[in-house]
Amino acid sequence: MKENKSEPGLTELGEFGLIDHLTKQFEIHHKSTLIAVGDDAAVLNHEGSDIVVTTDLLTEGIHFNLIYTPLKHLGYKAVASNLSDVYAMNCEPLQIVVSIAFSSKFTLEHMESIYEGIRLACENYGVDMVGGDTSSSLTGLTISITAIGRGEKGKITCRNGAKENDLICVSGDLGGAFIGLQLLEREKSIYLSNVQAQPKLEGYDYVLERQLKPEPRRDIVKLLKELDIVPTSMIDISDGLSSETIHITKQSNKGCRIYADKIPIHHETKRVAEELNIEPMVAALNGGEDYELLFTMNQKDFEKLKNTQGICVIGHIIPPEEGRHLVLSDGSTTEIIAMGWNTLRGEQEEEGRRL
Amino acid sequence: MKENKSEPGLTELGEFGLIDHLTKQFEIHHKSTLIAVGDDAAVLNHEGSDIVVTTDLLTEGIHFNLIYTPLKHLGYKAVASNLSDVYAMNCEPLQIVVSIAFSSKFTLEHMESIYEGIRLACENYGVDMVGGDTSSSLTGLTISITAIGRGEKGKITCRNGAKENDLICVSGDLGGAFIGLQLLEREKSIYLSNVQAQPKLEGYDYVLERQLKPEPRRDIVKLLKELDIVPTSMIDISDGLSSETIHITKQSNKGCRIYADKIPIHHETKRVAEELNIEPMVAALNGGEDYELLFTMNQKDFEKLKNTQGICVIGHIIPPEEGRHLVLSDGSTTEIIAMGWNTLRGEQEEEGRRL
Repeated sequence: MKENKSEPGLTELGEFGLIDHLTKQFEIHHKSTLIAVGDDAAVLNHEGSDIVVTTDLLTEGIHFNLIYTPLKHLGYKAVASNLSDVYAMNCEPLQIVVSIAFSSKFTLEHMESIYEGIRLACENYGVDMVGGDTSSSLTGLTISITAIGRGEKGKITCRNGAKENDLICVSGDLGGAFIGLQLLEREKSIYLSNVQAQPKLEGYDYVLERQLKPEPRRDIVKLLKELDIVPTSMIDISDGLSSETIHITKQSNKGCRIYADKIPIHHETKRVAEELNIEPMVAALNGGEDYELLFTMNQKDFEKLKNTQGICVIGHIIPPEEGRHLVLSDGSTTEIIAMGWNTLRGEQEEEGRRL
Repeated sequence: MKENKSEPGLTELGEFGLIDHLTKQFEIHHKSTLIAVGDDAAVLNHEGSDIVVTTDLLTEGIHFNLIYTPLKHLGYKAVASNLSDVYAMNCEPLQIVVSIAFSSKFTLEHMESIYEGIRLACENYGVDMVGGDTSSSLTGLTISITAIGRGEKGKITCRNGAKENDLICVSGDLGGAFIGLQLLEREKSIYLSNVQAQPKLEGYDYVLERQLKPEPRRDIVKLLKELDIVPTSMIDISDGLSSETIHITKQSNKGCRIYADKIPIHHETKRVAEELNIEPMVAALNGGEDYELLFTMNQKDFEKLKNTQGICVIGHIIPPEEGRHLVLSDGSTTEIIAMGWNTLRGEQEEEGRRL
């Protein structure tokens, strides 16, 4: 937690010096980035294409817990989750702006770690950091990121385009991020009850990576383009499969039928879920933070996709009056309801308990 | 502080319901806004023009104090200060995204007040609100706004274009917002020492409006266009004239000479400053939050401007080796240094005192 004495501290740098210091290693990848950090605004050029804009605000204690989140991972994940929204529009992210407010418990070294994670995510996804703001907060850390992306005309994919009989598809596997979080929470509880205890995190790499270093599915957007598939609707899975399914069907004014045994869950997720006494299906449906893509497509596109690894067809779209159903392995059905990850409710309940 | 019982509360609405509820009255003004709130990202189209992006993060206790800032004014000012950065690029703001995190002390009514201020600013400046995020925070209120604007090719004005012999101009008058803040701080102190005391704010309308409801200078950008003047550099005055002058001259690699008796200060600002024992010139140089425009222009453009009200020529650009000087009324000079409003340092000092 100490500042490196050979470098200036936060106080010596001041706000503008800090931005310069933290952003000097960021490279520019895109010709459309005309002017980046250092003026009142960034200047971008997007000749004739449609652009998308998305923003997220992450606050300490609600969206992340610094007891078990390394700051570099936090910076990376903040960008990753934001880019995930751009990919969910079937678009390519090009630029981000990043604002951070932090209290006096944070040192320059801490800020450097966060920006190192941000820089790494920008590198990995070919995104330019073009501006932002750093300032103080009275308590804790807040990160706000806005991403700008470009889409091909007519191929930007919203949530409201699902049609009857469309197939419902999901990338990767679900529930891992939630199980990783539960594991970290378990080790935090053990640590808080005995500060001598060392966290036992060996052998849990998969679920920990899913929680701490999620990767948005740029590759799926690229693959869909190569396969000449334009989804009819798409969303990223940040709040759990149930919640996202409801978003798509509600905004498309449709119903759906999803088959539980088609929902992809990694064997490592199942193994650790069992150890933690959590039903893996609950993690997949309501866990959130997997940052996979959920999309619908016309059945005629199935031929193009059927030999592809890493995308599962989990159900199909039905008329709205038929509702939203999860079909269990015994053939019985249950209504899909959103239980997941509503940060607003969760915190209010927590606050209520505390007061 | 009570919720209206005939309406749903924050808990019942949930995150997505809250966004819907708060944004349903926002109108769309621009054809370039293809899709606004309600998807993973907003979709915009800017045919062939350059776009600018700017972002601000405002945190409770640092950037605003809710003891004397009405929430509607806070929402308005958050947008106004953000748009000011777009005008400072000689551009027209078109869209904003707004993220808000708030603790459980805030009710739905509070959120509605903030969004009413945001909506009013969007109306007044013809800006579309196209997305955002609401979530919880453990303490206090945080507002993050990102604005997107459009500039004419070749007419976007950065901070780094000032040339030797250019005239330095400022819009409106300076120091009023700082004096308004000091007045509010005085009344806060009186109130905190005696909660029966009523704040005495009658007769101080001008400086209070400057602090609580600043208006970014859209009209100046329009005027410059009508006069066919493209400034060589421009910045908005958010941190005080000294700090902004240093930004422009540093980024342009130039020096400057500014004449103290040319700096515009409103007679009301002078009157209240005297009452508060503050030197009005200090407020103008280091006060901040006036959201006026500081710009440089070629001397040949002076003819076009000389009969215009509301823009003052306060100095000129000189070679960098000659430094940055403020010329006082007795002909003596002093170096321009930034004293103002560095939220980062300010808070660190405050934190330091508290610990």
